[in-house]
Amino acid sequence: MARKRNGGKGLKIISLGGLEQIGMNITAFEYGNSIVVVDCGLAFPEDDMLGIDLVIPDITYLLDNADKVEAFVITHGHEDHIGALPYVLKELNVPVYGTRLTLALIDGKLKEHGILETVDRRVVAAGDVITLGAFKVEFIKTNHSIADACALAITSPVGTVVHTGDFKVDYTPVFGDTIDLQRFAELGKKGVLALMCDSTNAERPGFTNSERTVGKTIDSIFSEHEGSRIIVSTFASNVDRVQQIIDSAYRHGRKVVVEGRSMVNILQAATELGYIDVHENTLIDIEDLKNYPDSKVVIITTGSQGETMAALNRIATSNHKIVQIKPGDTVIFSSNPIPGNEKAVSKLINELSMKGADVIFQDAHVSGHACQEEIKLIYTLVKPKYAIPVHGEYRHLKAQAGIAKSLGIPRENIFILSVGQVLSLNRNGAKVIDEVQTGAVFVDGLGVGDVGNVVIHDRQTLAEDGILMVVLTLEKGSNQVLAGPDIVTRGFIYVKESDDIMEEAKEVAISAMEKIQDRNITDWGKMKSIIKDAMSSYVWKKMKRRPMILPVINEVEI
Amino acid sequence: MARKRNGGKGLKIISLGGLEQIGMNITAFEYGNSIVVVDCGLAFPEDDMLGIDLVIPDITYLLDNADKVEAFVITHGHEDHIGALPYVLKELNVPVYGTRLTLALIDGKLKEHGILETVDRRVVAAGDVITLGAFKVEFIKTNHSIADACALAITSPVGTVVHTGDFKVDYTPVFGDTIDLQRFAELGKKGVLALMCDSTNAERPGFTNSERTVGKTIDSIFSEHEGSRIIVSTFASNVDRVQQIIDSAYRHGRKVVVEGRSMVNILQAATELGYIDVHENTLIDIEDLKNYPDSKVVIITTGSQGETMAALNRIATSNHKIVQIKPGDTVIFSSNPIPGNEKAVSKLINELSMKGADVIFQDAHVSGHACQEEIKLIYTLVKPKYAIPVHGEYRHLKAQAGIAKSLGIPRENIFILSVGQVLSLNRNGAKVIDEVQTGAVFVDGLGVGDVGNVVIHDRQTLAEDGILMVVLTLEKGSNQVLAGPDIVTRGFIYVKESDDIMEEAKEVAISAMEKIQDRNITDWGKMKSIIKDAMSSYVWKKMKRRPMILPVINEVEI
Repeated sequence: MARKRNGGKGLKIISLGGLEQIGMNITAFEYGNSIVVVDCGLAFPEDDMLGIDLVIPDITYLLDNADKVEAFVITHGHEDHIGALPYVLKELNVPVYGTRLTLALIDGKLKEHGILETVDRRVVAAGDVITLGAFKVEFIKTNHSIADACALAITSPVGTVVHTGDFKVDYTPVFGDTIDLQRFAELGKKGVLALMCDSTNAERPGFTNSERTVGKTIDSIFSEHEGSRIIVSTFASNVDRVQQIIDSAYRHGRKVVVEGRSMVNILQAATELGYIDVHENTLIDIEDLKNYPDSKVVIITTGSQGETMAALNRIATSNHKIVQIKPGDTVIFSSNPIPGNEKAVSKLINELSMKGADVIFQDAHVSGHACQEEIKLIYTLVKPKYAIPVHGEYRHLKAQAGIAKSLGIPRENIFILSVGQVLSLNRNGAKVIDEVQTGAVFVDGLGVGDVGNVVIHDRQTLAEDGILMVVLTLEKGSNQVLAGPDIVTRGFIYVKESDDIMEEAKEVAISAMEKIQDRNITDWGKMKSIIKDAMSSYVWKKMKRRPMILPVINEVEI
Repeated sequence: MARKRNGGKGLKIISLGGLEQIGMNITAFEYGNSIVVVDCGLAFPEDDMLGIDLVIPDITYLLDNADKVEAFVITHGHEDHIGALPYVLKELNVPVYGTRLTLALIDGKLKEHGILETVDRRVVAAGDVITLGAFKVEFIKTNHSIADACALAITSPVGTVVHTGDFKVDYTPVFGDTIDLQRFAELGKKGVLALMCDSTNAERPGFTNSERTVGKTIDSIFSEHEGSRIIVSTFASNVDRVQQIIDSAYRHGRKVVVEGRSMVNILQAATELGYIDVHENTLIDIEDLKNYPDSKVVIITTGSQGETMAALNRIATSNHKIVQIKPGDTVIFSSNPIPGNEKAVSKLINELSMKGADVIFQDAHVSGHACQEEIKLIYTLVKPKYAIPVHGEYRHLKAQAGIAKSLGIPRENIFILSVGQVLSLNRNGAKVIDEVQTGAVFVDGLGVGDVGNVVIHDRQTLAEDGILMVVLTLEKGSNQVLAGPDIVTRGFIYVKESDDIMEEAKEVAISAMEKIQDRNITDWGKMKSIIKDAMSSYVWKKMKRRPMILPVINEVEI
């Protein structure tokens, strides 16, 4: 009887990750009065989100159900999985569970936001099972481009959901163990309701290479460039990569400088936790570089994505206090451009090449995400009833759906969830039953959510053709023009006040005002719209541009 | 004796192509009183050139030497080689030489600009030699991703320079002949002073595949998708590609619709010239699509780069009048994303996938540019004394320099020219002897050159955090505040007039005005700068943003 009642009751899975095209990882698992939230990531703005620094998820649904939310459970320490935590925890203070490195990285963020002490942080290890209301959550060791990554087995009264987090299968990891394939198999043997599997590389055939292969490549690049100073740029959070670069440096008798704030921070956390093992006397301060010949040093830096403010860009553009590129330097990009960064990276490579550096940007990187054969392996071990591809753009989710189908999962058991959709699962079936409010919240400077679509749209208009203001002062009551109209522009065209076009624009404004007075129009809204229309149409005819037109009217009582 | 005098006189080669990171192809060859200009391309704006539509080269040097300029000699009809011609010819009306398709495409542009009749256009064919002042220019057949592409052998009294234009070696071209390797060899045998060779793919090992291989891929994709409607997107100017798609359609019994303005235009030109051969009754009007089942049609469209206004994007986003994506459609990208377009293309693929289309974006494209082995072949046939890599970003030019060196050309005989540098060559040597004015001219709407760095910088500021205006009216003479200060913002934050922040900002402006009056400041410049500073520092402290702050002051005489 009990089983029947539970069987009718659903487990709900809701992706709260904001926008279609932007991957913020945050998924709510709800059963009865319990909600567990997996990950809480941020996203970086799209090109058209002008001036926006970060994008975080809209957690209205969680706030509306705040009494149900048991905890955040974090799979690993990448920004798109932890970055929104400091913002979200300020509004919804619940415990945060994660492995040691993951929590160390979260701690750094909470400290920056001044809320470290107020948050209940709980360290777990792979293999741990925690009880959170109606759920049991088990952490399972995986491999990824950051240490201490875990998959989760989330068990509710109606069954177990396996969430891979971001993962790859690395049989020869640099640090720690191989992904716990046996546990995936064991869970699969017992029966898994649904698999939520990383889709990032679902379009790529084959297997992702082991992180260890990068070490060999770097070693051989070091051998080929014995005489020159070597600069290696990679992702700050890829501790295993940094480990391998340091190992290569040690083997080649080079000292290592680590440069870039995030790189220094993460390396410090990893060293304290024993996740990185640096040979004695290998690391030196950047100030001590001058005491060593070029052939005896390696500089490991951030900035492999061409970020303007990162160390490598400052080095390349001669804006770094200590390190400048000189002919003969070897610069290794141990990274691939993240989609959207291709041009910035290419610009950086050009800059480095022009300064005479030998730039190496091929084969010194492997992905942290599973390719098709690894995805098939996980499906085959876990044997889920339902497939819910996660993590990736729609094209990637769809590619994984194709893989799931090829492995025999019926089409109707595969769900590509839109953001906000509520998928209800129980022993009898699975179905999208509802949609909840979600969305993206823009962070700009200290402001969270005070920049919305109207403001962004204005910025787009301003960016395109600038602004043209028609400034005038009217007498209160009579609407007599006391001053102006004057034309003020910014970002429009290069003009001297005396230019014809400004004179003509002024004429247009004057004749609009005459029209207004002839018609005895006294309503400011109407007045402004007449001025605006006249000016818009003049500017469009004259130059085929559409600046923002802004009438600014002052009223003075005499 | 004559030889000695000439030997002392230099041939000058000057790249006038604008900015470092932007490839506008325009190169001046100067000897004595003759200047021949090879190509005249435009560039598309970089991300930070807000609101700019096109970038064209600054031709000050040519205008200063207008009496010497004999002609423009065009290698092929791509935008980055012909696009600036209508703008430049308005200022410098000299004859334009090119092959038939190249000139047909140029004619289209001149017609749009209303200057077709005023320009002296001269059709040449591969093999032709024309005399232009001190120069003889020979057109040599090459292969490229547009028909009718040529290399040039430019012979001056001090020797011959071979300029490859954009090229690949295609032993099995779809239309016309293979690149005239024999002529390259013959020239090499006689002695070539310098080779200016396409660097685009100089980082890629091996050989570029023949255009014909794409036909096979497309054919097999057609075979695999017999039942579904097929949409193929490619570059409008790749006539051979369109030919192959039409051939596949014909073989599979499908009718063809061509969609997208540039595609229709180029196809028409190519058909008139006999460069494309369409089977009778194969092309149909888009309005007739409804009369055929999905399995019997192919739509060939522009928009493979994710361009917002192009046909494919309109189709994907349901903004097309006739064609909408429906589940089961097959969409083939017969193209690769041009660097910088990756994200837009991915967005388009997501959009198409979400609508249920099966999107194929691999293996249905080959490059039009020579890879490393082809570059080596040309060097080996031409055996130049000097190597001047052209066409590509700095990294690509440098990669070709490496290839030239590997083939035995001494390092000091390889020149990577910066834009504006004047390379002087004669029988005794080669040397950069001068630098001339060059640069980029921005085209925005109908304006050419009226948007410069100041305007762009303003647009960047406006795009980042919007604008905040402090508006007030002062009494003339007394500087009494008659109206305001009022705060008006656009693109800054979402505010209601009643919001605290607007009230506070107003207070800041009022206290700045009090300070101004206390100090009896009457100079408007000083007044504005006090208001600006006070407001800037308030906004930065309060929200860590830097909008453009613009005090707008009216003066009224009472």
